[in-house]
Amino acid sequence: MKHLRNIAVLMLALFAMSIADEGMWTFDNPPKKQLKDKYGFDITQEWLDHVRLSSVRFNDGGSGSFVSANGLVMTNHHVGAGQLQKMSTPEKDYIKTGFYARTSAEEVKCVDLELNVLMELENVTDKVMTAIAGKNGGEAMQARRTVLAQLQKESNDRTGLRTDLVTLYNGAEYWLYRYKKFTDVRLVMAPEKQIAFYGGDPDNFTFPRYDVDMCFFRIYENDKPYSTTNFLKWKTAGAADGELVFTSGHPGSTNRQQTYAQIEYSRDYQYPARLATFKRTIAVLKQYSALGEEQHRRADGMIFGYENSQKAMTGEYQGLLDKNLMAKKLQDESDLRAKINANPEWKTKYGWAWDSVASAMNKTKSRFKELTYRGLSGSMAGRAMTIARYAIESKKPNGERLPQFQDAMVKMTLENLYSPAPVYADMEEVLLTDRFKEAQEMLGSNDPWVKAVLNGKTPEEAAKYYISGTALADPAARKTLIEGGEAAISKSTDPLIQLALVVVPIGDEMRSWQDKNISGVIAMSSEATGKGRFAAYGKELPPDANFTLRLSYGQVKGYPMNGTLAPSITTMYGLYDRAHSFANKPDFELPQRFKDGVSKLNLSTPMNLVSTNDIIGGNSGSPVINAKAELVGLIFDGNIESLPGRFTYSEEKNRAVSVHPGVMIETMRKLYDANILADELEGIIAQPAPPKESPAKPVKPTAKKKK
Amino acid sequence: MKHLRNIAVLMLALFAMSIADEGMWTFDNPPKKQLKDKYGFDITQEWLDHVRLSSVRFNDGGSGSFVSANGLVMTNHHVGAGQLQKMSTPEKDYIKTGFYARTSAEEVKCVDLELNVLMELENVTDKVMTAIAGKNGGEAMQARRTVLAQLQKESNDRTGLRTDLVTLYNGAEYWLYRYKKFTDVRLVMAPEKQIAFYGGDPDNFTFPRYDVDMCFFRIYENDKPYSTTNFLKWKTAGAADGELVFTSGHPGSTNRQQTYAQIEYSRDYQYPARLATFKRTIAVLKQYSALGEEQHRRADGMIFGYENSQKAMTGEYQGLLDKNLMAKKLQDESDLRAKINANPEWKTKYGWAWDSVASAMNKTKSRFKELTYRGLSGSMAGRAMTIARYAIESKKPNGERLPQFQDAMVKMTLENLYSPAPVYADMEEVLLTDRFKEAQEMLGSNDPWVKAVLNGKTPEEAAKYYISGTALADPAARKTLIEGGEAAISKSTDPLIQLALVVVPIGDEMRSWQDKNISGVIAMSSEATGKGRFAAYGKELPPDANFTLRLSYGQVKGYPMNGTLAPSITTMYGLYDRAHSFANKPDFELPQRFKDGVSKLNLSTPMNLVSTNDIIGGNSGSPVINAKAELVGLIFDGNIESLPGRFTYSEEKNRAVSVHPGVMIETMRKLYDANILADELEGIIAQPAPPKESPAKPVKPTAKKKK
Repeated sequence: MKHLRNIAVLMLALFAMSIADEGMWTFDNPPKKQLKDKYGFDITQEWLDHVRLSSVRFNDGGSGSFVSANGLVMTNHHVGAGQLQKMSTPEKDYIKTGFYARTSAEEVKCVDLELNVLMELENVTDKVMTAIAGKNGGEAMQARRTVLAQLQKESNDRTGLRTDLVTLYNGAEYWLYRYKKFTDVRLVMAPEKQIAFYGGDPDNFTFPRYDVDMCFFRIYENDKPYSTTNFLKWKTAGAADGELVFTSGHPGSTNRQQTYAQIEYSRDYQYPARLATFKRTIAVLKQYSALGEEQHRRADGMIFGYENSQKAMTGEYQGLLDKNLMAKKLQDESDLRAKINANPEWKTKYGWAWDSVASAMNKTKSRFKELTYRGLSGSMAGRAMTIARYAIESKKPNGERLPQFQDAMVKMTLENLYSPAPVYADMEEVLLTDRFKEAQEMLGSNDPWVKAVLNGKTPEEAAKYYISGTALADPAARKTLIEGGEAAISKSTDPLIQLALVVVPIGDEMRSWQDKNISGVIAMSSEATGKGRFAAYGKELPPDANFTLRLSYGQVKGYPMNGTLAPSITTMYGLYDRAHSFANKPDFELPQRFKDGVSKLNLSTPMNLVSTNDIIGGNSGSPVINAKAELVGLIFDGNIESLPGRFTYSEEKNRAVSVHPGVMIETMRKLYDANILADELEGIIAQPAPPKESPAKPVKPTAKKKK
Repeated sequence: MKHLRNIAVLMLALFAMSIADEGMWTFDNPPKKQLKDKYGFDITQEWLDHVRLSSVRFNDGGSGSFVSANGLVMTNHHVGAGQLQKMSTPEKDYIKTGFYARTSAEEVKCVDLELNVLMELENVTDKVMTAIAGKNGGEAMQARRTVLAQLQKESNDRTGLRTDLVTLYNGAEYWLYRYKKFTDVRLVMAPEKQIAFYGGDPDNFTFPRYDVDMCFFRIYENDKPYSTTNFLKWKTAGAADGELVFTSGHPGSTNRQQTYAQIEYSRDYQYPARLATFKRTIAVLKQYSALGEEQHRRADGMIFGYENSQKAMTGEYQGLLDKNLMAKKLQDESDLRAKINANPEWKTKYGWAWDSVASAMNKTKSRFKELTYRGLSGSMAGRAMTIARYAIESKKPNGERLPQFQDAMVKMTLENLYSPAPVYADMEEVLLTDRFKEAQEMLGSNDPWVKAVLNGKTPEEAAKYYISGTALADPAARKTLIEGGEAAISKSTDPLIQLALVVVPIGDEMRSWQDKNISGVIAMSSEATGKGRFAAYGKELPPDANFTLRLSYGQVKGYPMNGTLAPSITTMYGLYDRAHSFANKPDFELPQRFKDGVSKLNLSTPMNLVSTNDIIGGNSGSPVINAKAELVGLIFDGNIESLPGRFTYSEEKNRAVSVHPGVMIETMRKLYDANILADELEGIIAQPAPPKESPAKPVKPTAKKKK
């Protein structure tokens, strides 16, 4: 540190290209020009169709891909974890021990996993536009709803495929996405959570990383492994540093096309408020958790969940606090508005929308505290609210009810209500107390909601009164009330039901004010901003993510980090370094299999990799593929610098983090005794003949007239 | 990333202690109370004496320690590198290949290495205060100079030890530090620079780290290994996570006790200007370097040097831009001033000083651009300036000359001037051109200096004129001018000499203005702020670092980094991870010995460690010791977060980075065939009998009357 020293040319090598690897692109509109200009890659329809049909959606919020001709589907351990949990018993804890089925007979059927493959995309924008032509406001909204419902029903009836309505570009395009739906899905292989989520929450959302976050399922049809030609060929060697790679998956949501006023509102109101609430809730839960072993067990999962969200939201919030990021958002918006205002027709149609959003956001601010802090917490209070709402909603005609009380949904709502899951009254009381305290602090003691819930008591007294007096911990008590209907509910002496009956109307007043003054305005205005952007830039920019299939491109590439460089890959050496560095303590302890098996491993095997692909939550489990559509990685996270990606993409430091195929094969063969699976992935066993099913239908990038 | 996940309790474990491990403490005033309160450690005079006498100063800017009874001294490779360079030949490149002397006979004598051991400290503050009592301003300064020179001479004559004058607490204390001086120092062992500085500049100033930055010398007296009982016992196992550890070494300088006005000036003027100059100079050098192989070779070292400084200064500047850091500095100063102003005597004596500094800084700002941008660059221009100054200074009486032209120094100045080191005229021209351009941009074309140097030419033309026309590349030409004296110099037609003769008076005007308005005021005022702080807090706070021996304490401890945790140690597994992650490319390539020898190593051997010890440049080579004064580490760097440590210490993230004794022994025994050295360190060979020299004299913490 005292003397002058060498510097790496590496660090200063400037990347000459100016196009950023931004965008989660729909398959009807791939970034052809960018790929050609920056990477010299010609993307073809055949390539796109093959990748699309090799991509799998995990309906509970993740992505996956076909990796063999026999219906083998790869995703992340953390995407499959819900199913692993459900199929585990105290004797067979698959989360803890992992799982491997050597034969088809050993594969275990998932409890309720639905996988989808996107077979067809139909642009119905023209049909929608025709239906709403000449209509305005509420009339237009109703017409749109009607035509979409009709298109969806027709599609379902005609194709037998699951048809989802998809709105893109804030409402500038409407599509039908048709999925083949699979429900017979069986577990093939999962490692121990300890290695899948190695490094635990500290390493979560970071890189360098050392996780084997993989999980393999197999799709069955008619009790036989599903046969397909659309699967990704495996490449154990992975991709080279700097190589062009793609991901195909289902990013959940981004807010990149929100207006500046909305983002400012997030920065100045939503994020600080939510993070402050997280902070106090975590503190309260930790205080509770410290009371004893059992309290620790009860609160643990909840603390973990809050802290994980806190970490992610803190990263997003840091982005919003970054003046450069905000200046860029403002500049982009100014450019777009200038372009729109320069065209008289566009100006009339869309020019008003940004100010309209801003004014709605300002109105929201006027009631921000009420909208934010007038809320209960805990599962018992939540159930009391459901019962109280049921009393009110069930009197209304079906179409006017809140969605969860409409005929189509009410069954599931009541099933959830009657869940026998254990309720911890002492923890609920602690949470409710803090909610009351927060409301009192933020709204003042004279707020009607605060007055109503406290009713002259202190927060502690009130929470104790409601929780200790309620019978709702018992599912039977809930059922009795529902079955007694409005009469029973309105006469109930259960203090928590009485509380719910008092607060429901206050909530209703807020919601109807919000619907009238905010939500409707924002929906209309956002659609106009989307259409304006679309008019100005067409499909040069992809639409915000919405859990539909997207393609992103990028390259395998390290980045400047912590004063030095993060490499583009890590190796198994690093896994053992981290374990020994932390003396094998929790979060960094290796599974016994990895401790015992170290001498069998080639420790220079690549473990995780980073690439510039633009992804977000929901992309977990997405395949990373090379230009030949060969599998070279498995997305499982983003780095800490990628968290502001909700609002904007920066190629300098945003990175997608993947499991390298090398470590999957190395551990399967040497630690998991899973040579059969590794052979299937590496195509060592002869692939079966092409499937009998009809060949995949091509993508339909433009609207077609169909009856 | 999509699902909720676990979090480590680790990450949130709050450190309950409130005393920060801050301070580079003088040995007369160790942090007894802090050590007792925070770590329950009772520091004794015997412990302090032993550690002091085991500590070694490398006079060219580093630290070291005795690690055997036979005069073996350990320091960093980068501290020893200057000597390694000097004793290398094209056939024997010790920097590249490393070095190991199996026997005493094989040890190679260093060219000009002086090592010092601090034998005695004498506080002479009372003597100085007596000498200046009743005097003011210039008279006081002269009296202080006189008494200090006299004390130093007396000490040298009486003790035969090298005596340094030491000013502490901005002038609130004066000390004599007496050193035993060693000049027969021989090289014992050095690894390849490639592993000593593994990770190169990218990893410089960062952690996690994987460097074996060690170098071993042996001190000889009368041609025999120096025998001492004051050496640090080696502990190969190192220290445990959380263990109390100390460093004893020679931090070069800190600016922690500068006033807020000075720090603001650094933030708003000095750092941005210097970084901007670095940036353009690096760009110009890179442009030059890109011209060809030979240009690359010429510019390479200079680019490296600038970039290293740029990295360090950027880190320091980040600290100054941190609003929390600046707010804390301001608060500390306000607290101190309030305390001083509350005491009428202190208020009179010191209360004025902060405003006085601020006003001097404001005056500096008024001429900041002239003071900053009126300068030449390159070694030829520098030599022309020396020659021109020589002509002027040599006419003055000895005492009035600039220091480098006084009798005591002029010989060395002229030796440097006559150096036959090669001069690259094309590179000098490029640098001088950019200096002229920068001056023109910053000062305008009408600035007298700019007018004088350009003399109607463009920057390119002017630089070409001066450099192409000068004969100063030839050392003989320089010598001829000096030997011709003022007459020859003033009549020289060498364009670079003519340039120097024009700019010297402009520089003199600035310096005399600065001396009168700034430097003198700041010296007086700083002394008053130091005395004020001393009056208010006594020795609760240590003085700023000044390359005198300091003790710092702390604990082995990881820290939050990059969204996760940095562990407190790294292991050799991590070295191989980093090498393979970067495909063994430059800066991350392993020496052949490490590639070939991997299977011999225990890869879980600890490699580097971090601790909260407060250090800065100059501490390189300092021992890290445990409470028993056993050697558990070798300081070689700080992490990137420690760079603002020049201005303030933050325990949360500042870390000292050390080489672990484990990796030194492991590599010596398994890769360097250096079992004999490892045995000597681990005390496996029986230690010789106690030395014949008189036992070390105890530290003298208070002033003593001596003649």
